[in-house]
Amino acid sequence: MTARRPAFSGVVPPVVTPLTADGDIDTASLERLVGFLLEGGVDGLFALGSSSETAYLTEAQRTRVLEVVVGANAGQVPVIAGCIETTTNRVIERALISRESGADAVVATAPFYTRTHPVEIERHFREIAAAAELPLFAYDIPVCVHNKLDTAMLLRLAADGVLAGVKDSSGDDVAFRYLCLGARELPEFAVLTGHEVVVDGALLGGADGVVPGLGNVDPHGYRRLADHAAAGDWAAAAAEQDRLARLFEIVTVAENTSGTAAGLGAFKTALMLRDIITTNAMSTPMTAYDAEQTAAVAALLDRAGLR
Amino acid sequence: MTARRPAFSGVVPPVVTPLTADGDIDTASLERLVGFLLEGGVDGLFALGSSSETAYLTEAQRTRVLEVVVGANAGQVPVIAGCIETTTNRVIERALISRESGADAVVATAPFYTRTHPVEIERHFREIAAAAELPLFAYDIPVCVHNKLDTAMLLRLAADGVLAGVKDSSGDDVAFRYLCLGARELPEFAVLTGHEVVVDGALLGGADGVVPGLGNVDPHGYRRLADHAAAGDWAAAAAEQDRLARLFEIVTVAENTSGTAAGLGAFKTALMLRDIITTNAMSTPMTAYDAEQTAAVAALLDRAGLR
Amino acid sequence: MTARRPAFSGVVPPVVTPLTADGDIDTASLERLVGFLLEGGVDGLFALGSSSETAYLTEAQRTRVLEVVVGANAGQVPVIAGCIETTTNRVIERALISRESGADAVVATAPFYTRTHPVEIERHFREIAAAAELPLFAYDIPVCVHNKLDTAMLLRLAADGVLAGVKDSSGDDVAFRYLCLGARELPEFAVLTGHEVVVDGALLGGADGVVPGLGNVDPHGYRRLADHAAAGDWAAAAAEQDRLARLFEIVTVAENTSGTAAGLGAFKTALMLRDIITTNAMSTPMTAYDAEQTAAVAALLDRAGLR
Amino acid sequence: MTARRPAFSGVVPPVVTPLTADGDIDTASLERLVGFLLEGGVDGLFALGSSSETAYLTEAQRTRVLEVVVGANAGQVPVIAGCIETTTNRVIERALISRESGADAVVATAPFYTRTHPVEIERHFREIAAAAELPLFAYDIPVCVHNKLDTAMLLRLAADGVLAGVKDSSGDDVAFRYLCLGARELPEFAVLTGHEVVVDGALLGGADGVVPGLGNVDPHGYRRLADHAAAGDWAAAAAEQDRLARLFEIVTVAENTSGTAAGLGAFKTALMLRDIITTNAMSTPMTAYDAEQTAAVAALLDRAGLR
Repeated sequence: MTARRPAFSGVVPPVVTPLTADGDIDTASLERLVGFLLEGGVDGLFALGSSSETAYLTEAQRTRVLEVVVGANAGQVPVIAGCIETTTNRVIERALISRESGADAVVATAPFYTRTHPVEIERHFREIAAAAELPLFAYDIPVCVHNKLDTAMLLRLAADGVLAGVKDSSGDDVAFRYLCLGARELPEFAVLTGHEVVVDGALLGGADGVVPGLGNVDPHGYRRLADHAAAGDWAAAAAEQDRLARLFEIVTVAENTSGTAAGLGAFKTALMLRDIITTNAMSTPMTAYDAEQTAAVAALLDRAGLR
Repeated sequence: MTARRPAFSGVVPPVVTPLTADGDIDTASLERLVGFLLEGGVDGLFALGSSSETAYLTEAQRTRVLEVVVGANAGQVPVIAGCIETTTNRVIERALISRESGADAVVATAPFYTRTHPVEIERHFREIAAAAELPLFAYDIPVCVHNKLDTAMLLRLAADGVLAGVKDSSGDDVAFRYLCLGARELPEFAVLTGHEVVVDGALLGGADGVVPGLGNVDPHGYRRLADHAAAGDWAAAAAEQDRLARLFEIVTVAENTSGTAAGLGAFKTALMLRDIITTNAMSTPMTAYDAEQTAAVAALLDRAGLR
Repeated sequence: MTARRPAFSGVVPPVVTPLTADGDIDTASLERLVGFLLEGGVDGLFALGSSSETAYLTEAQRTRVLEVVVGANAGQVPVIAGCIETTTNRVIERALISRESGADAVVATAPFYTRTHPVEIERHFREIAAAAELPLFAYDIPVCVHNKLDTAMLLRLAADGVLAGVKDSSGDDVAFRYLCLGARELPEFAVLTGHEVVVDGALLGGADGVVPGLGNVDPHGYRRLADHAAAGDWAAAAAEQDRLARLFEIVTVAENTSGTAAGLGAFKTALMLRDIITTNAMSTPMTAYDAEQTAAVAALLDRAGLR
Repeated sequence: MTARRPAFSGVVPPVVTPLTADGDIDTASLERLVGFLLEGGVDGLFALGSSSETAYLTEAQRTRVLEVVVGANAGQVPVIAGCIETTTNRVIERALISRESGADAVVATAPFYTRTHPVEIERHFREIAAAAELPLFAYDIPVCVHNKLDTAMLLRLAADGVLAGVKDSSGDDVAFRYLCLGARELPEFAVLTGHEVVVDGALLGGADGVVPGLGNVDPHGYRRLADHAAAGDWAAAAAEQDRLARLFEIVTVAENTSGTAAGLGAFKTALMLRDIITTNAMSTPMTAYDAEQTAAVAALLDRAGLR
């Protein structure tokens, strides 16, 4: 087994997109958030992912968000830019804008909305990589795309130099293990999990890092978890993961709303309560956490010692 | 029961988008196609729907397609413009462009890619209608959006004047019947089915029209079917439907490809064979029907007497 | 097109299974129900289907139910017996018992609980038919089996004499139309729809009959609907279907329960209110409609003139 | 955190059911298999689970299998008996037979085939536990039951003494982590994973054991893995897991068959090649691995040093 050396690894939170009460990008809050994450010791920043409400932002807003993240980061860590679009040519358009905006890598899902075939999915990634001229991550998120990326295809694309890595939010831990096993022969290919409550097991199984939505709220916790794992202190990693899993219960506060609104609303409310961002406003048609829900999040932050 | 008088009804084919071999919009072919459909007696045109490859077109291409359709139509029948985007604000951006381009109505799905809640879906349609200042159709297409629109919500939005109609590609004929029943009290609300092989039953059950992808290939057939139904000659309507269902078997010619590529590829290949459009090119990452598949489509057109 | 002559066609309600308050089979009520259905003019009886709570009955209860139905029917119409079991050998065991109990045909789904492959499903039906020595119906009910039966396979099995018919509860009206089209060349193969609110369209499209759960409550209505269709009076058929669709709203009375409990509970409550069966008791773990829900069903029966 | 002391923990393989070429239970092979597993150091035996082809066995065969396993085990380790039936009363019938046959605990899924509601699922488990008079495990296997068991419900049933444990084959590692977290306060409640390739992470996260189908083939490997984890040597546990994950690739040998047939066929073929059982026969409508597939399994066993 060759030593691993992927360019993108460790703790790479998907940066949430703070909004003003009017629904505009709150650039001051976004800059503070990037600073908070960098101070927390993250290894990279993933802008314009699902957790960034990218599906809710207009093209102009997306470009603005990426520019602010790149600017606030000022080259300290790699910035990966989501290019979440329905099909190949639309992804490529965004990838080119992302490159101009200073992204260090881009992330694309399989086509969505439209029905696809495995052969089309593979061609999709090959064409994006050829056009983007930036490292490309495949984003495996069946809950959004309604398609699980095939492990053999991902490894083939990695071996061919098409993919620099995978962000796996598939929830399929068996397939993920085989992805990690296959990556043993691909030392530069980064396997990142998007599931923030099972990071200890993912790292034990060979993952290179994590893209934790909850890492917006507690980057220091994920830093410690990753450091414990790197040091081989798995009991400490598991204990830190347990603590973070309990903190993640903030996403269960909101009922009668979508999973997206519940999760992102919790992160934004926690960040507001921690004085990192100004409002917990959400994109239409989602609604922000109300006073009662905010109080419940505050109680969970108190329990976690984060206020 | 009040007499029905929806502004949009009858045969409203979703206009496919001809491409050049290089993947650009083939405007000359698109103009010929619009002319062919109008000559075939259609009652309206649905541009930029799923059958128009809208998910594959860039923003600039979408706008161009709509302008060409509106121009070639020259006010002869209503033009409905798909605004297929992930979330509310992005739909609204496209709706405003569509209005400027001369659309008579716009069509939106529920949010996709992101997970949604029924309350959010309802708010989504209300905000689009308020902003678009054009009649709004809800597009119910779970195979793409992974969400079935609730019948009671649709009828409530219709009663409130939010929705001018529904384009139903849900494949849920039971829900569709209740939509038709509910529409009895909403004389201006148009209920259109997107399932081109069960139009006779849909019309018998009270539907106001059909948006048949196959109507690109054989608009005259759908004209006859609708006319038979309007005249109460259901046996003739069923016989015509049977004929069209057999013609629809062109979509089964291609194997080992996506449902989208198989369906749209068949329509484009048939239109090419009928000398309406120049190429059967498909958007990346789909591929066009090859010579063998084209020959199989040709044989089915011959069987149907359409060549 | 050859004239159709399937042995099993027309109105074939799935007979619900009345229970005593203790959960035993209420044989007196079941006999009254069979008499009511025969008096209503049904063309056949489907015992031990999903609507008969067959998944909830023990082996002994299943056998008892079938014996009572066969006995009360006394040869007046064909009796079709559901053999709803997970896999081939278990279905065959039930099929042999059903034959001994006097069934005229048996009905089987694809294997369920276990994951299957199309080749296995086809072998499954072939082996059952070979062993059962009774006409075999395939039951297509993806909501229970989580598998849609392939149309080409069904037609192939029909052509080979393996299947006497299909009971289609797939909710896929497009596939159903192709099943009807394919059956044109198979005059003895019965295509029955299980969707009681779209029977008019199904018959217009070529179906041979219907297995309506709601037919327990209003067999006379389905008799009229089928007669109108047979006479070519489609407008009258559609009007009767509309009336029955409104009656079917009894299944929407119960909230916070399963679809199974809501549907069967409504039928049983309506039959109790119509004095055909004694209780509306349901199998564990379902619960019977309470007083308030019963009153709501009664109001809908009143609206329909059925009390 | 209280020390954990569940009655059922560690390595508890789901015992496959050897068949003769005629499809009968091969009792001699089954006895040898039980002996092999006990010699391999397993902590318990799970008979009549999905991996035992329980969905394919008749009632008489199920009873016979359980009797043979109990007899061969002769009280050495606890025997857990699957009672895989569609609904409550049918499960209870099997649970009572299982108790008579000497099972130490029983396992039930939520109702399947029929549609259920969470309230019904909870009532289902409560009634089974009350009737069975044996410790009850909930079996969470959405791929078969098409329903994910709710974590809060499972913990509530555990706290109420209804459930002795959970066998989790849900593939939802996030929910599994919360189950483990909740079990911290329930020292006698056993949380077992059914996913044999991610056992290291599951144990690191707090699981009490594993029910590995692959444990039929290599019980010694799972014994070592569990021992490494118990000793806190997580690197060794992960290395052993990686080895077992590579061995598990035997299930990918068969193409164009069901997942069930591919998986169980691989286990049976490997056991035949290891001279534990006599044939690799499978229940109808599945087919046994052919010579070519058998050779491929043999090669993987060779690679693993198991032949």
